[in-house]
Amino acid sequence: MIRIWTVLLVCALGLAQPADDSKPAGSNVPGAEYPRIYSDLRVTFRLKAPEARKVQVRLGKDYDMTRSDDGTWSVTLPPQVAGFHYYSLVVDGVAVNDPGSETFYGSSRQSSGIEIPEQGVDFYEVKNVPHGEMRQFRYYSSVTGSWRRAFVYTPPGYDSHVKARYPILLLQHGGGEDERGWVVQGRTDIILDNLIAEKKAVPMIVVIDNSYAFKPGETPPSLRPPAGPPGSFRIVVSPTFGDVVVKDLLPALDKHYRTLADRDHRAVAGLSMGAAYAMQVGLGHLDTFSHFGSFSGTVMRDLDARTSYGGVLNDGEPFNRKCHLLFIAAGTAEQSRLDAARHARAELDKVGVKYVAYDSPGTDHEWLTWRRSLYEFAQRLFRK
Amino acid sequence: MIRIWTVLLVCALGLAQPADDSKPAGSNVPGAEYPRIYSDLRVTFRLKAPEARKVQVRLGKDYDMTRSDDGTWSVTLPPQVAGFHYYSLVVDGVAVNDPGSETFYGSSRQSSGIEIPEQGVDFYEVKNVPHGEMRQFRYYSSVTGSWRRAFVYTPPGYDSHVKARYPILLLQHGGGEDERGWVVQGRTDIILDNLIAEKKAVPMIVVIDNSYAFKPGETPPSLRPPAGPPGSFRIVVSPTFGDVVVKDLLPALDKHYRTLADRDHRAVAGLSMGAAYAMQVGLGHLDTFSHFGSFSGTVMRDLDARTSYGGVLNDGEPFNRKCHLLFIAAGTAEQSRLDAARHARAELDKVGVKYVAYDSPGTDHEWLTWRRSLYEFAQRLFRK
Repeated sequence: MIRIWTVLLVCALGLAQPADDSKPAGSNVPGAEYPRIYSDLRVTFRLKAPEARKVQVRLGKDYDMTRSDDGTWSVTLPPQVAGFHYYSLVVDGVAVNDPGSETFYGSSRQSSGIEIPEQGVDFYEVKNVPHGEMRQFRYYSSVTGSWRRAFVYTPPGYDSHVKARYPILLLQHGGGEDERGWVVQGRTDIILDNLIAEKKAVPMIVVIDNSYAFKPGETPPSLRPPAGPPGSFRIVVSPTFGDVVVKDLLPALDKHYRTLADRDHRAVAGLSMGAAYAMQVGLGHLDTFSHFGSFSGTVMRDLDARTSYGGVLNDGEPFNRKCHLLFIAAGTAEQSRLDAARHARAELDKVGVKYVAYDSPGTDHEWLTWRRSLYEFAQRLFRK
Repeated sequence: MIRIWTVLLVCALGLAQPADDSKPAGSNVPGAEYPRIYSDLRVTFRLKAPEARKVQVRLGKDYDMTRSDDGTWSVTLPPQVAGFHYYSLVVDGVAVNDPGSETFYGSSRQSSGIEIPEQGVDFYEVKNVPHGEMRQFRYYSSVTGSWRRAFVYTPPGYDSHVKARYPILLLQHGGGEDERGWVVQGRTDIILDNLIAEKKAVPMIVVIDNSYAFKPGETPPSLRPPAGPPGSFRIVVSPTFGDVVVKDLLPALDKHYRTLADRDHRAVAGLSMGAAYAMQVGLGHLDTFSHFGSFSGTVMRDLDARTSYGGVLNDGEPFNRKCHLLFIAAGTAEQSRLDAARHARAELDKVGVKYVAYDSPGTDHEWLTWRRSLYEFAQRLFRK
């Protein structure tokens, strides 16, 4: 209780700020006055650390903070790019969380993050519209021999329209993230609620699972450090998750939820490493899925239209009849993934496979690219 | 991506540990080898901080960590009490999170926490039983003028038994926590799944909301620092949350879920500050609630059977006819709350009000006290 009141006292004292147009970041914990964002998107960070010798903010690069006489360190960063950014404070060389920030699971740890507002854009803000539910769904996997957790978005009206059945979108996180990514950082439920309210997307179920799935005794491949210089390694995607999806997850979903249980009503997409899983699971199971999305997939760099995925892309026309949507997205500020997407699109052009391209203006390998990708992708789903 | 691989590389190297019986804590992020717990419940903490001058673990008290030549600091703590404990690492005087730990919202920030296993006890572990769902429920509050979020547990079979209606338990977090507390630290869904599978509890809906609710312009009372020496202040519980419950939350729940919408089928309980809210909301609305639970409520210290809550307890018999359960719990290792519970029970004895007492053996003002309290409380609910 003493700790609680100490924190609250600090918060209360923090209220007495000089007048300016800055506001606490929306990604702060309740009551935390720092970090603060100005209308021009400059950001002030602050930390009390009287005994520290050096304190920095690590947000893209490292910014030195300046010490006041009372042991408070602070710095104001130049205007930041809109969207969600992971960041750290660095105290005497150790990257730590900012106590003022919520935490977000990424880079295989719980990290601070800051939401820089996007002027005039509200597709991922809670609005006065009917809301669906994000549900925690536990299911047993015979493949992994364990109970697993997925999050399942059910659209507005799911519980009242008891005869209605819905298509399913399976949505995968990136490397070092998990099934919480699309729920928390991705704001999937808010994006879908808003799209459905505007009739820009059909009501659908969205399933968000964890692709780190291993059979008993299987060595997690993603824990192997890359061989060779950075960028030279190929992404190792375990086939186990695909087995889990087909053998355990989809049957459990079809049993528990009112799904439309056929390939025409199933989509799969993912971001970064999740794009590799989405393509492997989706293009590897054309009898099960018909819509496919790659958001910032490095895997696209390696796409060979003649040989990849067992050669299913090799002949354009038969594939186009089976594929209702192939969506390939990247941010214009993430050059390597943009190049990968362009390579893949050129490969698909060679064989006459139809696809939809989306380049997110000005965004990097970050969640705003992926929120926008979902927003664009979801509007095109289940239209046939 | 470089950050991700750095973290994974550290994890991979961390696998080469000397043989002992220690295991990574269940509360660690995936792949994190530290903190590690031994079978005798000693715990080893570890942090790489080559440039730091002093590093400690703060878990109840401060333990100095020792620096190795490679800049890694570590310490092994003596056997710890079972249950969930918040903790921090202290780097050159700054309390920070352990990158190896998941984070848990408490003390008004995202904190590291460690789950010390309890020998032979599994009522809060996921078992091979039917599972309910924990759902994120958004509703509009006319009182606060905002969309709010609650978590709603629906019991196993809720979606298949489409005619069944269920009683509701409203469950409140403590000070400096929020609606995530009973979901994550409290493991409410797991406890209820297990109780219902053993037929020790009736299937019920559990609603977990945030009692920090303020009208437009209202000053959050809990942000006021306490006047006078520690322990001398009275808990200030805003009436706003009770308004939200009665005017907005319950009507929204009764509309959206298949509830039994009468007082006989509504219970309210809470921990610590949440106990104060539970008593205020519950005893203040006897026409709406009939089961009441105080878990580690400091508020019990101030109970006056003659005058508290508008005098509803003043005459035992009429109250006993209306009250189906009054449950007062505390941990035996949290003396001030145990004293408060005993004071309240003595007051109730004076006026002949019936109650159920539960003292959690050996546990402090922590989540194991509250998991056990929920386990005991839930079994006694809706039995009339």
